[in-house]
Amino acid sequence: MDSESTSTSSHQPWEQLKACLESNDRDGLIRTAQNLEPSERARTISRLDLDERQRLLTGLSPRVAADWIKELPSSQAAEIIGRLEPVQASGMLAELASDERADLLAQLDERATNAILQTMSPEEAASARQMVSYDPATAGGLMIRELLCYPENLQVRDVLADLRENNATYSDYEVQYAYVVQRPTNADGTEDPLHFGKLVGVLRMRDLLLSDPATSLAKLMIKEPLAAQTGTTLDELSEIFDRRSFLGLPIVDPKGHLVGVVLRHDVEEARANRADDDNLKLLGIIGGEELRTMPLATRAGWRLSWLIPNIFLNVIAISVIALFESTLEQVISLAVLLPLISDMGGNAGIQAIAVSIRELNLGLLRAHEIWWVALKEGSVGLINGVILGAMVAAGAWIWQGNPYLGLVIGVAMAVNTLVATMVGGVMPLCLKRFHFDPALASGPVLTTITDMSGFFLVLSLATLVLPKLI
Amino acid sequence: MDSESTSTSSHQPWEQLKACLESNDRDGLIRTAQNLEPSERARTISRLDLDERQRLLTGLSPRVAADWIKELPSSQAAEIIGRLEPVQASGMLAELASDERADLLAQLDERATNAILQTMSPEEAASARQMVSYDPATAGGLMIRELLCYPENLQVRDVLADLRENNATYSDYEVQYAYVVQRPTNADGTEDPLHFGKLVGVLRMRDLLLSDPATSLAKLMIKEPLAAQTGTTLDELSEIFDRRSFLGLPIVDPKGHLVGVVLRHDVEEARANRADDDNLKLLGIIGGEELRTMPLATRAGWRLSWLIPNIFLNVIAISVIALFESTLEQVISLAVLLPLISDMGGNAGIQAIAVSIRELNLGLLRAHEIWWVALKEGSVGLINGVILGAMVAAGAWIWQGNPYLGLVIGVAMAVNTLVATMVGGVMPLCLKRFHFDPALASGPVLTTITDMSGFFLVLSLATLVLPKLI
Repeated sequence: MDSESTSTSSHQPWEQLKACLESNDRDGLIRTAQNLEPSERARTISRLDLDERQRLLTGLSPRVAADWIKELPSSQAAEIIGRLEPVQASGMLAELASDERADLLAQLDERATNAILQTMSPEEAASARQMVSYDPATAGGLMIRELLCYPENLQVRDVLADLRENNATYSDYEVQYAYVVQRPTNADGTEDPLHFGKLVGVLRMRDLLLSDPATSLAKLMIKEPLAAQTGTTLDELSEIFDRRSFLGLPIVDPKGHLVGVVLRHDVEEARANRADDDNLKLLGIIGGEELRTMPLATRAGWRLSWLIPNIFLNVIAISVIALFESTLEQVISLAVLLPLISDMGGNAGIQAIAVSIRELNLGLLRAHEIWWVALKEGSVGLINGVILGAMVAAGAWIWQGNPYLGLVIGVAMAVNTLVATMVGGVMPLCLKRFHFDPALASGPVLTTITDMSGFFLVLSLATLVLPKLI
Repeated sequence: MDSESTSTSSHQPWEQLKACLESNDRDGLIRTAQNLEPSERARTISRLDLDERQRLLTGLSPRVAADWIKELPSSQAAEIIGRLEPVQASGMLAELASDERADLLAQLDERATNAILQTMSPEEAASARQMVSYDPATAGGLMIRELLCYPENLQVRDVLADLRENNATYSDYEVQYAYVVQRPTNADGTEDPLHFGKLVGVLRMRDLLLSDPATSLAKLMIKEPLAAQTGTTLDELSEIFDRRSFLGLPIVDPKGHLVGVVLRHDVEEARANRADDDNLKLLGIIGGEELRTMPLATRAGWRLSWLIPNIFLNVIAISVIALFESTLEQVISLAVLLPLISDMGGNAGIQAIAVSIRELNLGLLRAHEIWWVALKEGSVGLINGVILGAMVAAGAWIWQGNPYLGLVIGVAMAVNTLVATMVGGVMPLCLKRFHFDPALASGPVLTTITDMSGFFLVLSLATLVLPKLI
């Protein structure tokens, strides 16, 4: 089979890769992978099936394979890593940054993790194992171990020499600072693979550049630098970076040993991802990173786990309608209007929820400020309720020629919009106070409440003026 | 009035600031503002009214006032800037980065902008006017002008001397590179305030650090560096930064003159903001950055501009129910079930929309891949439809003791879930192909379609088996 003609006849890069895999054309595979724009990698690998992905990655060098793995969501990347020979997996993992490596290892089952760790040196394995143990939403989980650190007794010239010598290694680092440490001085002072020594100072690259080469690091360094513990939360880190213009923050263990550095960039990314996840949850995507290339059962399952609770909540809501069947039988036009009330209540409420979730994420709102939000949303809800109520009242009056029908639906729409807007604004705060996930639960709980109140308003008002409606 | 007792009796920082403003206690104002954690600034200023904000900012030094202004959404910041005396406004703007300054100026009316520009030097004004003219979603709008650049005939030692001398000024810059330029050599070679000269090379800070001070910049620099034009779009910039590990990219005008630098950080932020805006639009927040501290009329207006079109679309949808009034009259329990069908169709559809919008934003999906998405969503929709359909069929059968009612609602739910999932997945792609905003229009259009199909399915199936239902 002529791979050249294959690659001209197929336009999509994944089709070219599939053809190379099919014809066992390893050179073609490497060439096709190399010629691809990096921005096309994510889409391309996502279109291969699990088996093809595995064969693609093992066909490439570990370095190039690592670049491809980075483009996959971590759950999918872990799935492939788990299928590789431990030595192969270990080779690719070695090319990743320490935080990415830890993220992947954390998603493997214990057997696979252990098999991979056994291919590493004891020091590397101990360090990787420690990285995996941290909560991803803390400094330990966000930090990287790729950092520059030097003992305090060195001089500027030693650092410059080291930088020159290891230029190639360091070129992957995001170097803004170098850290100054005290190596253990006690008798059994073998190097501990889990930390870099006691943190005593920080050097700015700029200061190194501008100093006499004979200056000692101990003299040049900023002493007692601000550092955070591994358990520091994402919110706390955000606050530190908001307050100071640091590009990186050293992370220490409880004994003050330097264990890594958290970059401003990674904190901002983690924060943005959390806000993004919250918005997706409001839209019913609770897996967080559903992609269409994931297995069908996973996708259907994630979506059902949101849809099924919604059905039960809906049944509670529509049971209100069943209480008024005799009114409905006599004024069948009410049945036409019920879905309108239900839909508009949901719409008005979800707007208020979205604003609350956003303000909570931006730190502009605290969970106890329920009355303030109720007031703010109450005023918007009142205005919008009156306007929307007047619109549907006029419409219903004209439609059936009965002003009382207009009155019933208009008042119900106005009051329900007010209720939906206030409840929607307050709901995320209440859920947060009781330690529920506001993004996950707000929507379904809200629509149940607004449906019930909407149906009750329309049907009870209609029952009150029933003689005028028939 | 004793400001000390005021500040102890009021717990919230904005209450303290309000008290200082009321008692004209400028020292107290400055002290309170200074003592506040920077992370509390956003929340605090957002709780002051427009007049209080103006008095706060004019009470602080321009430098400190600029720090506070940055915490406001740009529309609100522009509102205050527009109310200040041009000289005061100009002083605060001078403390902002050039891109932030341009964002604010772009939101003022022309009269206010001109008044502020007149307080600046002609060069500053020309430069600011040019920055304002760029589209914010292009390199021109994203770039900053705070950069280091040197003529090519200098030596490393000259750069080091300049860095030492201007350390204070540059400490606000995000310095990773210095750019090397050719100054104009022709007779009328007065400095053009709109650019820095023709870009000929780029210097890495690291190389400066490691080089002999007598090296000429022309020899050390990386020649013909990658640069982008001011009109380069956000998507194109994202692709460049995805492909290369640059922290900054020089921006040139059509003649190759250096006009600014775009930082990786700012491109990532702009991209994240766009994805965030899209999610908010799906949730009915179309203003982009609604905060509860904005004026009531603005907030109510933005929300109504989404709710009112939804009412009209809803009326179209419920008109389907009106066609089947005689069926409804005979089987009133159908009226109870209609809101369930409508709500679940919307839920299943919005999940699919959210996944499509997300994949489009991540570059994993192209607008023409409609059939691929239809297939992927069709399979999820089929599985979920069958499961949800079976559930409601069983429920309805038990409730009314009539298997035919179960059949009608079950089949309608199954088919409508399939329709909603497929239409929801495909809708954003279709809208994008016809140059509508997928995030804005997908939701309302989808629910109209799924409501119509859901109501039609339930009521036409019921009409078919009507004798069995009565």
